[in-house]
Amino acid sequence: MQNDEQEIRQLVSTWMAASKAGDIETVLSLMADDVVFLVPGQPVMSKADFAAAAHAQSGEGTPQFDGTSEIQEIRILGDWAFMWTKLTVVVTPPGGAQSMTRTGHTLSILTKQSGKWVLARDANMLASVPNK
Amino acid sequence: MQNDEQEIRQLVSTWMAASKAGDIETVLSLMADDVVFLVPGQPVMSKADFAAAAHAQSGEGTPQFDGTSEIQEIRILGDWAFMWTKLTVVVTPPGGAQSMTRTGHTLSILTKQSGKWVLARDANMLASVPNK
Repeated sequence: MQNDEQEIRQLVSTWMAASKAGDIETVLSLMADDVVFLVPGQPVMSKADFAAAAHAQSGEGTPQFDGTSEIQEIRILGDWAFMWTKLTVVVTPPGGAQSMTRTGHTLSILTKQSGKWVLARDANMLASVPNK
Repeated sequence: MQNDEQEIRQLVSTWMAASKAGDIETVLSLMADDVVFLVPGQPVMSKADFAAAAHAQSGEGTPQFDGTSEIQEIRILGDWAFMWTKLTVVVTPPGGAQSMTRTGHTLSILTKQSGKWVLARDANMLASVPNK
């Protein structure tokens, strides 16, 4: 169980690093094929939706991404687990425009597939932080 | 497992009916003592926070509550389970003012304590729907 928790912490670290690097394929490898993303005010997002949105935002002249994820709880339930975090994401548009910060909690369900933990269900409750 | 799913569906029905009736004690009986509520743009809410907010909103001259919860998935994991729903809540202020509708998804973790399912972690992603 200790190992499982460490593997999930590593998944979060890898996810954040790959997101910063714009490495979409690595991020996609960290989620189940039937993953479900839930966010406020938007329809349910599938893995294909996630990939399409990520590719649309990639390339030159696109915003830079930075973020920190503070894990509040991980609970292992056999081949399933849940986790909640406090997540802060900073998006900086190209050309020196002011960055935008979004912060809030996430609640995620993870599952172990062929010995590897992947994201299975994800609730993202980030809200914009007013610029100072 | 079939029974567990039915008991969780019953929990959701009881929760909605008790909320409509303003029966705060019944709603509180459906959650674990260490329940965690996560919502966008707000701090983490405990059971005591939930109770205080519910009591502050109760009494005469307070808004009427109505809502529907459409369960999208329930997955039983032994004495734990997760569920996500599409929830719509309509709040009608007293005195004939226009009602406000909020809709969106929830992702919840439930646990069986002494043979009874209760809410343990809850992510609520409801957003306001513009009035027509």
